[in-house]
Amino acid sequence: MSLKELVIQANEKSVNNMMESEPYLIDTALAKDVIPGFKEFMLLHAGPPVSWEYASGPLRGALIGAVLYEGWASSEHEAENMLRRGEIMLRPTHEYGAVGPMAGVISPSMPVYIVEDKKFGNFAYSNYNEGLGRVLRFGAYSDEVLKRLAWIRDEVFPALKGALKLLRKERGGLALKPLIQRAIHMGDDGHNRNLATSHLFLVELAPYLVSSDLQKDVFKRVWDFMRSNPLLTLNVVMAAAKVMSLAAHNIKYSTIVTVMSRNGTEFGIWVSGLGNKWFTSPAPIPRGVYFPGYTQDDANPDLGDSSITETVGIGAFAMAAAPAIVSYVGGSV
Amino acid sequence: MSLKELVIQANEKSVNNMMESEPYLIDTALAKDVIPGFKEFMLLHAGPPVSWEYASGPLRGALIGAVLYEGWASSEHEAENMLRRGEIMLRPTHEYGAVGPMAGVISPSMPVYIVEDKKFGNFAYSNYNEGLGRVLRFGAYSDEVLKRLAWIRDEVFPALKGALKLLRKERGGLALKPLIQRAIHMGDDGHNRNLATSHLFLVELAPYLVSSDLQKDVFKRVWDFMRSNPLLTLNVVMAAAKVMSLAAHNIKYSTIVTVMSRNGTEFGIWVSGLGNKWFTSPAPIPRGVYFPGYTQDDANPDLGDSSITETVGIGAFAMAAAPAIVSYVGGSV
Repeated sequence: MSLKELVIQANEKSVNNMMESEPYLIDTALAKDVIPGFKEFMLLHAGPPVSWEYASGPLRGALIGAVLYEGWASSEHEAENMLRRGEIMLRPTHEYGAVGPMAGVISPSMPVYIVEDKKFGNFAYSNYNEGLGRVLRFGAYSDEVLKRLAWIRDEVFPALKGALKLLRKERGGLALKPLIQRAIHMGDDGHNRNLATSHLFLVELAPYLVSSDLQKDVFKRVWDFMRSNPLLTLNVVMAAAKVMSLAAHNIKYSTIVTVMSRNGTEFGIWVSGLGNKWFTSPAPIPRGVYFPGYTQDDANPDLGDSSITETVGIGAFAMAAAPAIVSYVGGSV
Repeated sequence: MSLKELVIQANEKSVNNMMESEPYLIDTALAKDVIPGFKEFMLLHAGPPVSWEYASGPLRGALIGAVLYEGWASSEHEAENMLRRGEIMLRPTHEYGAVGPMAGVISPSMPVYIVEDKKFGNFAYSNYNEGLGRVLRFGAYSDEVLKRLAWIRDEVFPALKGALKLLRKERGGLALKPLIQRAIHMGDDGHNRNLATSHLFLVELAPYLVSSDLQKDVFKRVWDFMRSNPLLTLNVVMAAAKVMSLAAHNIKYSTIVTVMSRNGTEFGIWVSGLGNKWFTSPAPIPRGVYFPGYTQDDANPDLGDSSITETVGIGAFAMAAAPAIVSYVGGSV
């Protein structure tokens, strides 16, 4: 066979695998207990590798917040010094089968979703979505942000853990592909709009939350937190996309792109046949809409693993399904 | 003012009222306990008035089922005789502020949703949706159908009653217009597709179902029944539409149509300025898609109050919002 034929064949296999992948949300656990190779004093971040020196403001903020959240430092100053001196290992999420929106920082004691590909046996992980406003993924690390992260670990995580345990026992996990398919018919693009997956997810989850032995006030707090976050399931969809892309990855001669991601400084891709080798360029600065008092000059280069949704063909490529957000982006359905 | 000017002014008022109406789901009750004027040995049905003699098969079936459900007769034969002899009063839903899909039969002991217009003070009612398959609204009255109706009354109704009581205490009821608006962005037309309103409704309802003192197994049965019915909230949306149309009704000189409905024999309308006077024509026979073994010759003339959704401008008029069902109907978005 010619090289061209080998490439065509390999690409077909990559794409077919991606399509045939069967992502299920099976469990949730603390990152250090489930992500292979995750160590103490290690932080994962979105996009290709980057050192503290070259990290952008939002990523630096999220890293500082994660160091404080872990209790490795007791002040911003101390945290920053540890990071500057290289005492904290910074590793790209994708190299650990993980994905996170925006800064994408995952620390050892953060709960993560576990998505299993029932067809190909791969696993992917994503952190929990904190909601809107001041949140770690945008680089915020005030008390409010750290308290919310602690509450998520102490109350939301055990609640979800209990519900997912029952769900998995009864149904082998939550099949994510049918959920995303249905959501695309319900106005989601799967990246910037995940309102439908969030509602579908909550409706699936409710009976298991109720059957586990949650106290009523805990149910109410956890439910209100989840239902008020229109991006609740962005991270779940991202983990599904990651596991789909893994099915297409590491296929000899395949030129299919299996990772596209940004760390706020650089944009990086993986190509299936070339394994986990990063190919990078400077991250572009998006032309956006700004809060009053801010301009294009305040913008940060692009950031986050959420483009894993586009990598498997939803997100921007499903924008026509999401007329409610087309107006943000410009153009027409 | 000329008559023309009076009509224009009255129509503006009708339309403005319809737009400004604020439908809230506030409670649920047995029909006889809440629908003014409802009596024992009375049945409501969709569309304009019709006698047993002129009733079509599906409506006759639903009426027989309702007589059996109420225990007024103990056999199909006895029920049919009572109906034929006029021992059961047949009245149009709309004359009682009620609406029901398809046959639209509401009997005194059936639970109904209560929708209040917080702006204009009107009330509207609709029965519960039984799901798909063999159901009363299509004229089925087998044991399976009657058992389900009894279970809905004995288990679903008290569960919803308890939850809606708490919801009303905390929030004054469930605001339906924002829910429908959001659902239109999520692929619903509000008539044939109510998947999004159903999910939004369930996510709103869950914490109140949990806070009321439902047993876990009851929660699970009720939740599974509700979540597996994609038309769960059709009846709620119809009651919202009815209360909106009532705000536009009975305005002197207004020529706005405030009811459009079918009883399986005739199609009837109300015109705002002419009060509750029915104007009727033979109901058209839709050209549809048939189950194997059935043809256009088996089709019944059009049936049901669900066209109240079109009366207030959603349903067919919002079809472009619901691409998933455009293929049923033909044409394009």
